[in-house]
Amino acid sequence: MCEAHAYLASDGGQEKIMENVVTLNYDGDDLVLRDLFGDEKRLKARIREIALLERRISLEPTGTSS
Amino acid sequence: MCEAHAYLASDGGQEKIMENVVTLNYDGDDLVLRDLFGDEKRLKARIREIALLERRISLEPTGTSS
Repeated sequence: MCEAHAYLASDGGQEKIMENVVTLNYDGDDLVLRDLFGDEKRLKARIREIALLERRISLEPTGTSS
Repeated sequence: MCEAHAYLASDGGQEKIMENVVTLNYDGDDLVLRDLFGDEKRLKARIREIALLERRISLEPTGTSS
């Protein structure tokens, strides 16, 4: 299995926001993450880096601007 | 191993541009892909969708605008 964990940049660090992510896509301004179990998380963020071997997805908030 | 293949949207379809991608990150406006062998590809594109179980990364060109 190749799921990964998603981290969102926050003050001085990275906060894990979702485990076992299997898909990412955009819906308008929202980045939509889905995990192995079908749970979904939407946030205003952009993808900063994806490291597949480390199974790590790094995101950063885009704020409320579109 | 969890590498994936990267596809770039083109006229009416998707063109495979890199196999065995292990990392994606942005360098300014450039999206930088690296594969298992350390080869690197830079392009003006954004990530449209990532489907980890299908090992598929879908990109779309951003053109020359920044």
